Amino acid sequence: MSAEAKLKELGIELPEIPTAGGNYLHACLSGNHLYLSGKVDRSVKGKVGAEVSLEEAYGAARQIGLFQLAVIKEELGSLDRVKQVVKALGMVNTAEGFDKTPAVINGFSDLMIEVFGDSGRHARSAVGMASLPNNVSVEIEAIVEVMD
Amino acid sequence: MSAEAKLKELGIELPEIPTAGGNYLHACLSGNHLYLSGKVDRSVKGKVGAEVSLEEAYGAARQIGLFQLAVIKEELGSLDRVKQVVKALGMVNTAEGFDKTPAVINGFSDLMIEVFGDSGRHARSAVGMASLPNNVSVEIEAIVEVMD
Amino acid sequence: MSAEAKLKELGIELPEIPTAGGNYLHACLSGNHLYLSGKVDRSVKGKVGAEVSLEEAYGAARQIGLFQLAVIKEELGSLDRVKQVVKALGMVNTAEGFDKTPAVINGFSDLMIEVFGDSGRHARSAVGMASLPNNVSVEIEAIVEVMD
Repeated sequence: MSAEAKLKELGIELPEIPTAGGNYLHACLSGNHLYLSGKVDRSVKGKVGAEVSLEEAYGAARQIGLFQLAVIKEELGSLDRVKQVVKALGMVNTAEGFDKTPAVINGFSDLMIEVFGDSGRHARSAVGMASLPNNVSVEIEAIVEVMD
Repeated sequence: MSAEAKLKELGIELPEIPTAGGNYLHACLSGNHLYLSGKVDRSVKGKVGAEVSLEEAYGAARQIGLFQLAVIKEELGSLDRVKQVVKALGMVNTAEGFDKTPAVINGFSDLMIEVFGDSGRHARSAVGMASLPNNVSVEIEAIVEVMD
Repeated sequence: MSAEAKLKELGIELPEIPTAGGNYLHACLSGNHLYLSGKVDRSVKGKVGAEVSLEEAYGAARQIGLFQLAVIKEELGSLDRVKQVVKALGMVNTAEGFDKTPAVINGFSDLMIEVFGDSGRHARSAVGMASLPNNVSVEIEAIVEVMD
């Protein structure tokens, strides 16, 4: 099943792309790789493991996945032009002692695999940051390979 | 206007490239992408939001941009061989509670756009680190696409 | 000398690849670039500069290099298919005040150069994180260019 068809089957409607919080692009296409800027979910703020639970942070990571899908669609015209989700860097605003960052970023990775199947499987790091813009809890950037 | 001509118009002279603080290259060319190592401005040290102001950190980010231009020129012979600044990862040594990391990294991004125009616009993340080498305030790495 | 021959000469036997701690791949091949997920050494845990010394952290970085070599071998069949180690992001779980992150990540970079010679020299950033998965001390991701 194509990614666009899968999205319909899952009943997912893509959200509006949040405005950029600085002087940068949502994404930059270079050769057949689309580099996606770090996106955040502004509705989930605070340190994960203290003000924000693992479950809420997982939800933010999934929502960021939806934002990135919306960026991909805007840049490429269709999700069906994605050949492979190649790489993600998942960044979590962690409270002292919180180290379950991979479980948070699974919210993004699970969504990519739901939508793209095996083409959604990617290399990844999922790590804890001292701070993220506007005190959001999660930020994720990614690289996507585009079909010729 | 070409990037080299623009640099002259702006009256910018490129600085010397700081020595690497470890066993790595300033940059690695792979295919037509130049991967730039994280560079720092050793004259700006300390936590941004405490010992270092947003304005000072913005200045460091701009200075790092100049260092990266110097690396690009050394690697490629001319800035005019840059097709596109593709991606940057901006890392800020943040004090507790400082979350204006995008405003810091704009110092780098603004310079790229001044020098390269639309080819200087890039994808980006701008995030807060627990520490940076030798307690510097800002470190930025980037990927640049080179003309065929 | 080829990388495989060099490995034998050095008497290095590649370790088993640690299981992934989340929903992601060890590596993703895209065009002729192999993107390696962040790998960790689960036997070295805690903040570098407090519970863990620089020397122990250097050792963890070297061990991660061995894990990444094992991943490369599994993905490509032979280390001799590596054209160039292009880029690494070295992440260190730092205690307050520890800023010798480049000296830690040299453990990885030194190994790459031992095994691949000049083809092991790469661009890099080496930075301090607020936390890493399961409180490990070091995590390193990398990009490797593969021969045509």
